[in-house]
Amino acid sequence: MAPTNTPLSPPLAEDTAATSRNVSFVLHGIDDVRFEERPVPVDCDDDAAIVAPKATGICGSDVHYLKHGRIGDFIVKDPMVLGHESAAVVVKVGKNVKNVKPGDRVALEPGKSCRSCYDCKGGHYERCPDMIFAATPPYDGTLAGRYVLPADLCYKLPDNLSMEEGALLEPMSVGVHAVAKVAELKPGSNVVVFGAGPVGLLTAAAAKGLGAARVIAVDIQESRLQFAKENGLIHDYCVPSKPQEGEDKVDFQRRNAKEIQTRFGFTERGATGVDYVFECSGAEVCIGTSVFLLKHGGTMVQIGMGRPDISLDMHTVLTHELTIKGSFRYGPDVYRLSLDLVARGAVNLKSLITHRYTFKEAKEAFEANTKGVGKDGHAVIKIIIAGPLESDTA
Amino acid sequence: MAPTNTPLSPPLAEDTAATSRNVSFVLHGIDDVRFEERPVPVDCDDDAAIVAPKATGICGSDVHYLKHGRIGDFIVKDPMVLGHESAAVVVKVGKNVKNVKPGDRVALEPGKSCRSCYDCKGGHYERCPDMIFAATPPYDGTLAGRYVLPADLCYKLPDNLSMEEGALLEPMSVGVHAVAKVAELKPGSNVVVFGAGPVGLLTAAAAKGLGAARVIAVDIQESRLQFAKENGLIHDYCVPSKPQEGEDKVDFQRRNAKEIQTRFGFTERGATGVDYVFECSGAEVCIGTSVFLLKHGGTMVQIGMGRPDISLDMHTVLTHELTIKGSFRYGPDVYRLSLDLVARGAVNLKSLITHRYTFKEAKEAFEANTKGVGKDGHAVIKIIIAGPLESDTA
Amino acid sequence: MAPTNTPLSPPLAEDTAATSRNVSFVLHGIDDVRFEERPVPVDCDDDAAIVAPKATGICGSDVHYLKHGRIGDFIVKDPMVLGHESAAVVVKVGKNVKNVKPGDRVALEPGKSCRSCYDCKGGHYERCPDMIFAATPPYDGTLAGRYVLPADLCYKLPDNLSMEEGALLEPMSVGVHAVAKVAELKPGSNVVVFGAGPVGLLTAAAAKGLGAARVIAVDIQESRLQFAKENGLIHDYCVPSKPQEGEDKVDFQRRNAKEIQTRFGFTERGATGVDYVFECSGAEVCIGTSVFLLKHGGTMVQIGMGRPDISLDMHTVLTHELTIKGSFRYGPDVYRLSLDLVARGAVNLKSLITHRYTFKEAKEAFEANTKGVGKDGHAVIKIIIAGPLESDTA
Amino acid sequence: MAPTNTPLSPPLAEDTAATSRNVSFVLHGIDDVRFEERPVPVDCDDDAAIVAPKATGICGSDVHYLKHGRIGDFIVKDPMVLGHESAAVVVKVGKNVKNVKPGDRVALEPGKSCRSCYDCKGGHYERCPDMIFAATPPYDGTLAGRYVLPADLCYKLPDNLSMEEGALLEPMSVGVHAVAKVAELKPGSNVVVFGAGPVGLLTAAAAKGLGAARVIAVDIQESRLQFAKENGLIHDYCVPSKPQEGEDKVDFQRRNAKEIQTRFGFTERGATGVDYVFECSGAEVCIGTSVFLLKHGGTMVQIGMGRPDISLDMHTVLTHELTIKGSFRYGPDVYRLSLDLVARGAVNLKSLITHRYTFKEAKEAFEANTKGVGKDGHAVIKIIIAGPLESDTA
Repeated sequence: MAPTNTPLSPPLAEDTAATSRNVSFVLHGIDDVRFEERPVPVDCDDDAAIVAPKATGICGSDVHYLKHGRIGDFIVKDPMVLGHESAAVVVKVGKNVKNVKPGDRVALEPGKSCRSCYDCKGGHYERCPDMIFAATPPYDGTLAGRYVLPADLCYKLPDNLSMEEGALLEPMSVGVHAVAKVAELKPGSNVVVFGAGPVGLLTAAAAKGLGAARVIAVDIQESRLQFAKENGLIHDYCVPSKPQEGEDKVDFQRRNAKEIQTRFGFTERGATGVDYVFECSGAEVCIGTSVFLLKHGGTMVQIGMGRPDISLDMHTVLTHELTIKGSFRYGPDVYRLSLDLVARGAVNLKSLITHRYTFKEAKEAFEANTKGVGKDGHAVIKIIIAGPLESDTA
Repeated sequence: MAPTNTPLSPPLAEDTAATSRNVSFVLHGIDDVRFEERPVPVDCDDDAAIVAPKATGICGSDVHYLKHGRIGDFIVKDPMVLGHESAAVVVKVGKNVKNVKPGDRVALEPGKSCRSCYDCKGGHYERCPDMIFAATPPYDGTLAGRYVLPADLCYKLPDNLSMEEGALLEPMSVGVHAVAKVAELKPGSNVVVFGAGPVGLLTAAAAKGLGAARVIAVDIQESRLQFAKENGLIHDYCVPSKPQEGEDKVDFQRRNAKEIQTRFGFTERGATGVDYVFECSGAEVCIGTSVFLLKHGGTMVQIGMGRPDISLDMHTVLTHELTIKGSFRYGPDVYRLSLDLVARGAVNLKSLITHRYTFKEAKEAFEANTKGVGKDGHAVIKIIIAGPLESDTA
Repeated sequence: MAPTNTPLSPPLAEDTAATSRNVSFVLHGIDDVRFEERPVPVDCDDDAAIVAPKATGICGSDVHYLKHGRIGDFIVKDPMVLGHESAAVVVKVGKNVKNVKPGDRVALEPGKSCRSCYDCKGGHYERCPDMIFAATPPYDGTLAGRYVLPADLCYKLPDNLSMEEGALLEPMSVGVHAVAKVAELKPGSNVVVFGAGPVGLLTAAAAKGLGAARVIAVDIQESRLQFAKENGLIHDYCVPSKPQEGEDKVDFQRRNAKEIQTRFGFTERGATGVDYVFECSGAEVCIGTSVFLLKHGGTMVQIGMGRPDISLDMHTVLTHELTIKGSFRYGPDVYRLSLDLVARGAVNLKSLITHRYTFKEAKEAFEANTKGVGKDGHAVIKIIIAGPLESDTA
Repeated sequence: MAPTNTPLSPPLAEDTAATSRNVSFVLHGIDDVRFEERPVPVDCDDDAAIVAPKATGICGSDVHYLKHGRIGDFIVKDPMVLGHESAAVVVKVGKNVKNVKPGDRVALEPGKSCRSCYDCKGGHYERCPDMIFAATPPYDGTLAGRYVLPADLCYKLPDNLSMEEGALLEPMSVGVHAVAKVAELKPGSNVVVFGAGPVGLLTAAAAKGLGAARVIAVDIQESRLQFAKENGLIHDYCVPSKPQEGEDKVDFQRRNAKEIQTRFGFTERGATGVDYVFECSGAEVCIGTSVFLLKHGGTMVQIGMGRPDISLDMHTVLTHELTIKGSFRYGPDVYRLSLDLVARGAVNLKSLITHRYTFKEAKEAFEANTKGVGKDGHAVIKIIIAGPLESDTA
């Protein structure tokens, strides 16, 4: 069941016609998800667009809402359409809209911010306290026949990009934001990425495409790393060693950090370590290890969400003058950067997709994502749901 | 014994003559400190200076070596002269030296870096792995008749600055480094400083002098805060509330953060919180609270050294896109900035001194610092040791 | 007629009632300005506010439109209300508005940006190509009974700030933007400001209030400098020397730069010069001199608009690794910073006002500003127009 | 004579033995250059290395000293060895040296700074006023049998890099400094480079290797651009159009800028233009055009040295909030970055070399560089001088 052996699921036929109905995939409660026919929106604001989603990736957060009904303080109280990694066909635009027109194939940036708070005006709309984000309660997501959003959040896809790639600009943008906007990666830097899930792998690929010298991906599942390397998403990787019996937690972190430094040659006296760690696992052991992996003056960016209370060595943070930064979703200009990286071939986004399902099979797709194994018996990395089509009904 | 009631110890007569001997205050082991006569250095390198220290502040680290024989991995194995917060009179300079001359009154920057490693050349000599730092094992400190250092680490004192103020540029530079170089404080920002020891108070004063809008000092000892306010080092302060019975650790941190925000009006929707926290206590409760005190996108700088293993809320770091940075000692240009702040009256450094001792009384001075109470029965904030004088002998 | 001897014009009674009419001061052509009664706006967008302006400063650009009908590519084609430096009373707010309410005294930020372009979303709305700016053709200004703007551009004045001070936050924000956002002034820096008009003086005061160590104001009119020093806006100043007969243009600039460096002691070997120059004159001789005044690695910010084609020494820019930046109007967070500086007493904005006129006297006020001499025979620095009042009619 | 048709001169045999003599190529006056036997250095400082140069590139500045006897204020008064783009074999090292050992093949960073001034300590040694730079009067260069320098300025070449590539790290570092340290290139940016000489081409290649999205090289000599494209140094280029009869200087610049923007698609409303221009020609027309080519908020870095007095449109600098920065030589960490880019194949440095000469042929090599045409009749881009060998004598 290793992803390395997976014959990638072949692309489904791409539907680029706007269909006439708004069938939606709606979460009603834990493990209770239903197909429903919702009204088709007819009008939109002058600056908005009505779109018909055609390809949607499944994200861990969608599955989490399905299985737990909440993520932290975000609780599903009313029925909510799932999905937020989508590409679509434009159906209608408001009268002020110039960047897209009906029929355009577009990637959807799924967060509408207030545009007037301190952070929105200051260039950080990802921090907006009034963000309306697809499939984050109480706001509906994109697994539906129609979605309405501000037109400047629609990004026209060039002909050489598929709808599927358009959908995957969403998780990729999480990585690009962390690399380009939060870390402000200095060109020529050395990087370690913890966690080889979709976001970790795309962060690694983005770091390389955005000018990093070397990028080392680290995960405990070697099969994922091999899969990613064979598909060109990463070049170097390693699997960390395991704690020895009776080994102290911090000693173990130090040892692992030193082993990675030694293995990849980051050992120059006075500049031992890497410039950046992008932490996409959320695991305390990785966060703790990061502190010892970094060069003096290095930066760790936290992207993965694990348990909240994390313990780390503040002595080392202090004496090595480290920087730790949080990275949340994506801010201005990030979708454009992601699209550009894929369009010019710097990141092979397609290679991430292991499985494809039709809209009708959405429940099955979520089930496969939950189990981590697809209908072909192979491990899941990223699932894409195609549609809905005209023939899909509630 | 509150410092607020302390009639400040009057300045001792300032000795600005270079004396002829090198009597030194030497740590031999835990609680074993001796006056010794050491050879008088006669020659120095072309770029160096021989100086006669005349005023030295006692730092917590000096006391720690006296009482514990080590700080973390730094262990006192051989006899070591104590002291590193000093001003001096220049005795002799090497032939290339132009910035100072014999007879000059100078503040001493007590760390000699290698000048050729990655960090030294890159503008961060505070991170040099080969740093020779006064009174950090195995290197001798400045409580002696003579000290030799690179001449560019001697800063000529203007006439309006005393030797005592020159000595206190050292702890002040720790704060200035954190504010100006690590945080790169944006002018007009709001600031909270945890910890009202000498470094905390000087960090607060430096932040204000360097352009902060408001600076709130926080400590559990109100008497220290009152003392500092009466002496013009701080303007606003508060004492955090105590945990309620059975209150969860993190809930308590959240509540305290919210109380401080509310009390000082940092509550604007979308920009709740402060721009910077300078954490000078090293206490986990303060570090944890900082995370909740900051505005989205805010920065916490860790200056205080407590226990290494610290737990904090990484969810909030991530979703609020916070930055956490370590600040260690001081790097290039910091002494000049500190001196300038004091010389133009932006920081009243003298007001920090609660007690003064002669060189002969050095043991008593260390004892007072350890107990936190001076010979007058009043609480200690900062002790200055004057001398040595010609008459001081081993 | 020197401003230094000016008994400042006493404040007029402050009218904080919203009046019932919309009498407006309208530019019809060169030197053709008329009082007109315009319709009173009744409704506004959900996020907007209708305000009644009560104090307006005259800016050089207002006068320029009056006398020339254009500024560069901005040409007055249709009748346009003048004025953009204003404070007002809120009359009505849209249903989403929470930051202000009817009756509030507010400063007006007079530029409405599109909020969806690259620069608006990126934190630089001052660069928006679709900016609607008061009294910049074809958009009406604020010298009127009513003005409508997005409510988040209204800044509630604290009780200790007058309407006049509220109006002057506009030119002050030009300086604060240049210092805090464009230069990102490093605390403790040394600064030279060229030009002692309102913007130059406020830039100097802002630089000091935002953490500069020393600020030297330079102008050829010593009386303005004396006036500003006597009123606490600046501390140090100098009048540059004149070119000698036959002296080469660049030699003259070099000599003047060296004289200023020497006079104020910016002469340390290896760090000769100042950290920042804020160029508020627009004069080529000042721009050229700036290049020689700066420390290696120093920054010059261009604020003053002179003739477009400027010649400067690019050799020195290159070998000294200088930075030259343009600063235009003001971006996010700047009004808040300006208001805070004035409210906490760091900048004495009132002292800039040399003359006051009623709304009825607006033509006379513009005439005085054009001539540079007020009704009292004294030199003009800043004129404030009060009103309109209920009794003002077209 | 177009470089595009040049069959590249084949590499000469690489001599990696340290020879026993110090024959030197010495400039005595304008067009007066002589081979001289100089004493062989036997000892060096504890931190220094004695090396035997084996490959040296000819730089425009070497030729300029030969033909004019000066560059600006740098005047050749005493005989001076030429050459500063070199790789060498280590002959001897001081006792503290650990990074290299005798026999190592190394690239030489040819500037020794003071390490104690404001800029050296602050991370900008390229600005040191006491810099000792090879072949900049009065300091000898590297076209000799021996050269002595601080060992930390020797960079060990990996086996896959030739001596010639080691030598060319020097001009490449000029580009890398401009891109990585001065511009601090944001990953994913669009770039224009003016000037297709060696520094311009290497700047373009460095920008691409360091994460730029698109890099457009601009020069009036199309043959150079074709040569560079065929050899993989650049991907996109254009030749600007010529001024039309009677066309105003600034109108021409505007038109050319617009043509480049349109041709390469940098025309998005609200984000028209490129993020960075690297100006390597020194020509006023290119500098002037840069101002119109940039996006609002964009950055121009001046690298090429032309005549000092340059005229540009300061209105546009101001209203578009542009940044102009000077870039001089290279600072800390740059050689490491350059070496890494070449070693990992991101920049093909070898392809720049059009001609090779032996040390004995050095005069001929300089003559070819002056004329711009090599012994094979083909245009010169970069000439490498091999040696000296044991057999080379004065």
